[in-house]
Amino acid sequence: MISEKMMKLASGNSAIRAMFEEGNRLAEKYGRENVYDFSLGNPNFPAPHEVKDAILDIIEHDDPVFVHGYMSNAGYPDVREAIAQSLNRRFGSAYNAGNIIMTVGAASGLNIILKSLLNPGDEVIALAPFFVEYGNYVRNYDGELVIVPPTTDDFQPDPAEIAKYINSKTRAIILNTPNNPTGVIYTAESLKKLADMLEDKQRELGTSIYIISDEPYRELAYNGAEVPWIPSIYRNTIVGYSWSKSLSLPGERIGYVVIPTEADDGQLIFDAACIANRVIGSVNAPSLMQRVVMRCVDVATDLSGYDANRQLLYNGLTDCGFEAVYPDGAFYLWLKVPGGDDADFVERAKKYNILVVPGASFAGKGYVRIAYCVSADTIKNSMPGFKKLAEEYGLKK
Amino acid sequence: MISEKMMKLASGNSAIRAMFEEGNRLAEKYGRENVYDFSLGNPNFPAPHEVKDAILDIIEHDDPVFVHGYMSNAGYPDVREAIAQSLNRRFGSAYNAGNIIMTVGAASGLNIILKSLLNPGDEVIALAPFFVEYGNYVRNYDGELVIVPPTTDDFQPDPAEIAKYINSKTRAIILNTPNNPTGVIYTAESLKKLADMLEDKQRELGTSIYIISDEPYRELAYNGAEVPWIPSIYRNTIVGYSWSKSLSLPGERIGYVVIPTEADDGQLIFDAACIANRVIGSVNAPSLMQRVVMRCVDVATDLSGYDANRQLLYNGLTDCGFEAVYPDGAFYLWLKVPGGDDADFVERAKKYNILVVPGASFAGKGYVRIAYCVSADTIKNSMPGFKKLAEEYGLKK
Repeated sequence: MISEKMMKLASGNSAIRAMFEEGNRLAEKYGRENVYDFSLGNPNFPAPHEVKDAILDIIEHDDPVFVHGYMSNAGYPDVREAIAQSLNRRFGSAYNAGNIIMTVGAASGLNIILKSLLNPGDEVIALAPFFVEYGNYVRNYDGELVIVPPTTDDFQPDPAEIAKYINSKTRAIILNTPNNPTGVIYTAESLKKLADMLEDKQRELGTSIYIISDEPYRELAYNGAEVPWIPSIYRNTIVGYSWSKSLSLPGERIGYVVIPTEADDGQLIFDAACIANRVIGSVNAPSLMQRVVMRCVDVATDLSGYDANRQLLYNGLTDCGFEAVYPDGAFYLWLKVPGGDDADFVERAKKYNILVVPGASFAGKGYVRIAYCVSADTIKNSMPGFKKLAEEYGLKK
Repeated sequence: MISEKMMKLASGNSAIRAMFEEGNRLAEKYGRENVYDFSLGNPNFPAPHEVKDAILDIIEHDDPVFVHGYMSNAGYPDVREAIAQSLNRRFGSAYNAGNIIMTVGAASGLNIILKSLLNPGDEVIALAPFFVEYGNYVRNYDGELVIVPPTTDDFQPDPAEIAKYINSKTRAIILNTPNNPTGVIYTAESLKKLADMLEDKQRELGTSIYIISDEPYRELAYNGAEVPWIPSIYRNTIVGYSWSKSLSLPGERIGYVVIPTEADDGQLIFDAACIANRVIGSVNAPSLMQRVVMRCVDVATDLSGYDANRQLLYNGLTDCGFEAVYPDGAFYLWLKVPGGDDADFVERAKKYNILVVPGASFAGKGYVRIAYCVSADTIKNSMPGFKKLAEEYGLKK
């Protein structure tokens, strides 16, 4: 008797989440320290002390009716203004509070944007491999997710290939850079080419095609790698952000969207997205956390731990003979499965208490995603298992 | 170019929210203390000290990776178990963590239940007057909201009338007791009659018809008035709860749903609702606030301030000659507009800097909602204005 849409979803429930639950079961059986769980993007480093300081100060000194109360659906005006000014300092933009909507994480941000843009049958493009939930978000609004196959040489967007998938029903293309699951950062050059192609297509079709830039990993770029600000490259860009990774607050569900005034129908989309925030049930982003991120808006993410993990994991796995994409950002390693059967690799890895996510979960068959937001010990202690796996596959250095 | 559904919503944007924004504008012009804003259900009493104590203790002593991290989409198991046990103590039920899903407030709770239940074209019944967002929530999943007209003598549900609106497409009926906007608490007797009728209809139609009980005002019942636990009266009941009102945390977006195992397809609905929590973008209820409410699960709501307001407002208005429903619960007074033109009443009231919400916003024409979650001074100082309004209408005591 339940919703048919949900029946389908329930039967094909998220492999990542299933893995998370399996990790908990294995941990109960073998002890947490003997399970090498690389399945979930849950930051292992604690939130920076500024978060704790902010919470304590707000709770001790601010009016609880204000701190825990309702505000406009878009969020507290001062919080939104602080975010706009921070973006302006970094990217030379000219945003104000009227361009920012606080959201229940990036996931709700993408939902309110898609709800604002889509009519039934509209198409949204995702570049494989991609975060599997995009499809669910698009289908929430009866849109259709159109998947462009991966560019496996460098995993950068390929405008000529993407162009083949664009038609008059194309409303948006979701980009995610630094990328989950590949760890690749899209270069300014490749984004510029993509923007040119999209401009051409908009002219040709007489439509607006939005880039929805999903940026939870914006601050996770190693060795000073540049993460281009896409709205300055392509006018019809809407950005979704979350502090889940940069401030290690994934459970708190706090993020924002940027809707530039200069985007086509920018004000209309902003108004619609505020209402969408309300009617999907968020109403507003959690209030205390809004006050907290306002005070942390310029706190730099300490990347040293993730960076060390990145080296340790990449070097360890390539020493075993595996091939992987060297990640410039995020906290994922995208490993090429010898022979290409990623489901089989995942099962084999479980024998060594190693949990990784099959590439198929990202429309990226032939690879697995290894999340290195774990302790260095987890990586070190998993290496004998990975070495045996490499031997099973007949790999040699 | 934006979504047509959202265009409609944007043009008919919430009167309550519009009033909230107008209240802010008037306050800037005349000073907050000279605007009598009765428009929004934003608790004016601060969260009890137990909330502050809990936040400080958790932030000082618990592991931030745990406190701010991901957990299962349903929420922390220990939080859910604590809620289940609290319900069991109060209502003699036999719930456990497997019946509870933590949600981003009651609004998200209703959304995930409706998303789990509805197929396009399914019907959901609401009893007028009702919280206007129900319609939006139902239409999010392409369901149709069917409105049963008010029973203006006592605003209790009228089973014989409701029965006329039930057919094979009826999937659910939303109840809200204590009621927004009337302040009425549905009696055990009227709920029992309603349950009998629904049982008959289920047998007759061979379908399951769920009561979705929206209970953000559960703890706001005056003079020890009983708020019946509907799952013990009708088996196919799903409950949505929020701490927005009981702990004065509306901005924090923290609530839960109860899905009893004994409800038809109870386990399926639970599984679907967990996934729905994820895919609508909530992912999980805010993590710190989950830990907080676990510690406050048995904290009694201090009703003395609201109760005093209730007397002050009701007596003041009836002394002016107005008629109103005497509220047993929630923090709303439902005032009968002399002559029945509620839109006109709202406009007239604005002249005296009094903001109230027209009954039409709740499908309850001829009345206005006066939210008394305000300071006693706001009520006292608004009385000269209300008195002049009464005189405009030619009312006499």
